[in-house]
Amino acid sequence: MADPIEFYFDFSSPYSYLASELIDDLAAKYGRKVKWRPMLLGVVFQKTGQPLLVNVPLKGEYSMRDFSRSARYYGVPFKFPAKFPLSTLSAARAYYWLHGQDCQKACDFARAMFRAYWADGRDISDMDVMLDIAASLGIDREALSAGIATPEIKERLKVETETAIARGMCGAPYFVVDGEPFWGADRLPQIEKWLQTGGF
Amino acid sequence: MADPIEFYFDFSSPYSYLASELIDDLAAKYGRKVKWRPMLLGVVFQKTGQPLLVNVPLKGEYSMRDFSRSARYYGVPFKFPAKFPLSTLSAARAYYWLHGQDCQKACDFARAMFRAYWADGRDISDMDVMLDIAASLGIDREALSAGIATPEIKERLKVETETAIARGMCGAPYFVVDGEPFWGADRLPQIEKWLQTGGF
Repeated sequence: MADPIEFYFDFSSPYSYLASELIDDLAAKYGRKVKWRPMLLGVVFQKTGQPLLVNVPLKGEYSMRDFSRSARYYGVPFKFPAKFPLSTLSAARAYYWLHGQDCQKACDFARAMFRAYWADGRDISDMDVMLDIAASLGIDREALSAGIATPEIKERLKVETETAIARGMCGAPYFVVDGEPFWGADRLPQIEKWLQTGGF
Repeated sequence: MADPIEFYFDFSSPYSYLASELIDDLAAKYGRKVKWRPMLLGVVFQKTGQPLLVNVPLKGEYSMRDFSRSARYYGVPFKFPAKFPLSTLSAARAYYWLHGQDCQKACDFARAMFRAYWADGRDISDMDVMLDIAASLGIDREALSAGIATPEIKERLKVETETAIARGMCGAPYFVVDGEPFWGADRLPQIEKWLQTGGF
């Protein structure tokens, strides 16, 4: 089987959420799997010196309209959450701890977190909310809670974030397909052509 | 006939060039015309406080790759020019002067300017280069040269730039379709769906 598509994202990124609803089906169509890789987008902002899109004059107003319209375009449920931005540190650590236990469960958790935040407006930075969502997937609260506090998991998220940036991640979502980087949910059509043709 | 699509751009914007090669055909497919509206993107940068994309760490490197790949994706000839950025003041004024004479000729001129810069690497900020391109389209050099120096044309470009920003232009290309704004060549699929469905 060909290499998986690497999918770098932050749970607080609306375009990452949209992509998270689409990328697995797109990959499967071409016999690919997807490596989900949450990271901390704030570190990218530090490197690029860029503010949050929603805080940029003119772009902020446009982007709020574009988030919703893009969601409707893709047929993905979307409601801009009352709390934005928020910390995704625990959610991302939880993903990596789960990934060490059961890779499929980790992806289910990631999808559930994205939906909880971007469709249902839940505060996923709140540890209880995060653990409730995990529990609804049959994940043990106590084990997860202990798992994300370990030095190994803290280090893992740090390394994944650094790796994403070392690979050129300049915004989220960021994909690497056979070495080729793609930034943005709006690059999915180019990713599809890349998968179809082996590069263009 | 339904209202035309408004297409705001700066000749120095690579994604505007890509869009310029695609938007007329897309509009025609749905019985629409396109109002080409060059403006000065630097004024948007002043409002947004954003630097040139190619100068942003991480994003700059990615964008150079994305410009070329997007051009290949769309099947549009593209070569990043040696001189970038450059002043598009004279080119934009020339467009409006020509538009007052012959609307179709003005669009032909705009397309020719985009190609001269983004496919052939010509310095379109150089008045002689600009006039040569105009002359190749049968436009009178002397008349154009005099036309762009008039206060009316200088004012027209100022007004068009202010209008674009008043309509929310946050980057280029920027389209307005029946009141709905779209930013980026990568929003062409959404524009198509908007034209197909009358809004979604």
